[in-house]
Parts: sequence; C-alpha cells; structure tokens
Amino acid sequence: MEENSKNKQSSIILALDFPFQGRLERENLLAKASSLLDMVSPHVCAVKFNHHLTLPLGIFGGVQSLVEQAHRSGLLAIMDCKVNDIGATNTAIAEYYYDAGFDAVIANPFVGWEEGLKPIFDVAAKRQRGVILLAYMSHKGAVEGYGQTVRDAETGIETRQYLAFARKAGKWGADGVVVGATVPEKIREIRFVLGEEVPIYAPGVGAQGGSVEAALKAGARFLIVGREIVHAADPAVKAETLRQKAELAK
Amino acid sequence: MEENSKNKQSSIILALDFPFQGRLERENLLAKASSLLDMVSPHVCAVKFNHHLTLPLGIFGGVQSLVEQAHRSGLLAIMDCKVNDIGATNTAIAEYYYDAGFDAVIANPFVGWEEGLKPIFDVAAKRQRGVILLAYMSHKGAVEGYGQTVRDAETGIETRQYLAFARKAGKWGADGVVVGATVPEKIREIRFVLGEEVPIYAPGVGAQGGSVEAALKAGARFLIVGREIVHAADPAVKAETLRQKAELAK
Repeated sequence: MEENSKNKQSSIILALDFPFQGRLERENLLAKASSLLDMVSPHVCAVKFNHHLTLPLGIFGGVQSLVEQAHRSGLLAIMDCKVNDIGATNTAIAEYYYDAGFDAVIANPFVGWEEGLKPIFDVAAKRQRGVILLAYMSHKGAVEGYGQTVRDAETGIETRQYLAFARKAGKWGADGVVVGATVPEKIREIRFVLGEEVPIYAPGVGAQGGSVEAALKAGARFLIVGREIVHAADPAVKAETLRQKAELAK
Repeated sequence: MEENSKNKQSSIILALDFPFQGRLERENLLAKASSLLDMVSPHVCAVKFNHHLTLPLGIFGGVQSLVEQAHRSGLLAIMDCKVNDIGATNTAIAEYYYDAGFDAVIANPFVGWEEGLKPIFDVAAKRQRGVILLAYMSHKGAVEGYGQTVRDAETGIETRQYLAFARKAGKWGADGVVVGATVPEKIREIRFVLGEEVPIYAPGVGAQGGSVEAALKAGARFLIVGREIVHAADPAVKAETLRQKAELAK
C-alpha cells in the first residue's frame, strides 16, 4: 500500500459502493461501477469493495472483473467483508476473496484468535495477501461495542475496546487497522498504541461527517471515501480535490 | 420457525456449508448442494446458508435457486452473514438477501443500534422477515469477545458481553439469538435472561464438539448442524438420527 500510495501520490481509497438496486437496475450495475472506477482510478491508490457490489453481481464473473480492472490501473483491491465467523468459515471466506484477486480483506478482531482470526492470517501468509482489522467504526452506534469499557483478560485492568483491538492488531501482525475519520481523537490514541508500523485506514470522510485534515493530522495514513465521490456530480474532480487536500494536509 | 418446526417435527437446521472449492470443483457445487439439500430436507425445519456457498455461486442466479428449493420443501432459509457494518451498508445487505428470498439474516449486535442494526430491523419490519442476533459463538476464540467482561454503559455494573447482547436482543425485538452448543452453561444463562420469547439457535453440534442433549436441556430451541450431516456417509440418515435424538431430548 505504501509503495502504491507513493506511486500514485494519493492517500485516497475509493469505496466503490452503490445503494441497493432493484432487479432491473442491477443489469447496468457492473457497467456503472466499471465506468466510475475508470474515472476515479488516476486519483486514488486503492479501491475498497463491499457487499453493495458483491451481493448483486457475485464475485466470480462479477466483481472479479472490477478487481482486475483496478489492478490494470495500478490500484490495490480491498474486500471490506468485516469477517467475523468461526475459523473454518473464515478460511473459506479468505480463500474465495483472495482467489478472486483481492489484495486484502477486512476482519473484525471481536471474533478472537483461536479458531477465529488465526486461520485468516494463515491463509493470508500462505497467499502473501493482507489482513486489515477493525478498531473503531465511523457510525454512531460504534460507541456501544468499539467504545465500551472492557476488562483486559490478561492484566485485569479496565481499558477501552478499541485500544484492546489496536493492541491485538499489533500482536497479530495486521497490515492495517480501520478507525473512523469521524473520531479523530481515537485515531490519535490508536496511533499512539500502534506507532508507525501499522497504518490507519479512516472511512467516514464527507457523507458521514469526517474531515480529511483532522483524520490525517490525528495519524490516519489512508482515507476511505465512498458516497462523497460516488454521488458527486463529477466523481473524478471530487476525487482529485480530496487527493490534493490530503497531500497538503499530510 | 415455531410452526415450521412443528410441521416438520424437527428442531434441526441444516448448515449447508462446503469447504473452499477450487475453480474446477466449483462447477459442480450448485448441483452438489442442491442434491444434498434434497436428501436432507425431510428431516430438518430450515436451512442456513453462509459464504461457503454465496461466494463461489453468487446469490442471484446461484444460491437463490437453493432458497427457492428450500421453500418448495417446506423449509425456511436463513442467511448467516453475521452483518456488522454501518447502517447504510447493512440496509443494502439486508435488502439484497431478503430480495433473494431469505426469511432471516444473522447479525452481530456488537455493531450497536444507531446507524448500526436499527436500519436492518427497519428493513426486516418493512419486508416482514427475521433478524437473528449472535450472543455467543461456538469456537474457542469466542471467549475473547463474547466472553469478555464489560461495563454496562447505562448501569455502570460489570457484566459479561454475551449477557449484554442477550438483553439487547430482547430490547430490540430480535427473532432469535445464536449461542454455541459448545457452551451449554451459557445457553442456560441466556435462556434465563431472555425467557421463552426469543428462541436460541445453537450451532456447533458434532464436528465442533457440542451435544444435542446438553444444548436442548440447557434451553436451546433449534440445533444448527453442518459438517456432521454434510460430510456423513449418508446425510439423510445422519439428519434423521439427529432429528430423533432431539425430539427425545426435548
């Protein structure tokens, strides 16, 4: 990601998300997504996919072609599947996404290590791909889980869930953590826990109220932007504006 | 589910899961899944799908045909997607799965209510479908998240995460909770919190070490069984044996 971001001189990751589409609209969805990706590609360093596209289009014979398109444009492709299942299922999930060409998957550390996320890290190591972990999400309800006070099982000391997750991300060798751009003070705390080694990916800029400058100043390395670009009158111009704003704020 | 279970005289839910399949093997996967579903249908009350099938086959033009097959055989279809995203994404996920015919989706309460799970419950209410919440999973690592000690945000009192989840399931009007058959003592505690109103779905019987009798005696209403049936020499016989065992233990 670091190399890619330097080559493209961009810290922006496009979240290629479209709202729910009815049966008829779905026919044009692949073409629509491909055309948007094409327009925005020069201004971003990676593209993040979510179920907005994998559910209506499928992966093989569907989203896989967008992943290949992203790679041809010099972008990395991240699958935001927020994996949180048992090990055997997580293994199957990771194998399928990596098989379709994704460079990294996003997983939820809440599921734990043994028979949980360890199998995903094993598949990732075997296939030389990435695993990015959630640390704090960008929506209001995140305070209930990510923001809750928990008692650390090893030390017995009270801590915040997101700090416990950040420590696990460091210990497990995650390739990045996700922290909402809507909570820059938590980006700062997590950055302090993780140091320079594990980059912070911050979603929630624009539509959700997060600011490019605040997130980067707090320590985010990449900004994930969806609706702000996807629904813009001119997505390429919007992406380029955000790219420049981020380069200035770095 | 209650009516379906009575009609079919079965408390067993088939988890129609196959391990990761390479490109060539994928061609036969739909036929294989359909044939297994056909064999096992008379002995179960519902079928639970996971990414084991939705990723390789896709939903529309793929798993959707299995959902329709399940309905023709008098079974309900549950999508075990363990949703845990922000509201806008959760809405799209729920809409697509319900659109494909699923009767219920499984979601993770860790994501919280506001801009989290509320939008899913809204879609479910609009479409008259179900939402089942995770309370405690069946794998070892579950102790890290589901088993952790948390401080209740409202009361300030320390509690276990899975009990907090069970209370939320009651408050939010969930149509069921998932509790691993591997932890019957937790089934008992959660049953005590939730009473008769919210049925407990227990996965982890067989391959993961859970017992039919222990899970039902502790208060589980439905048993979710995957590998134990799917990899059996005779899946129909295995499903019927489990069905009878469960009817006797109820």
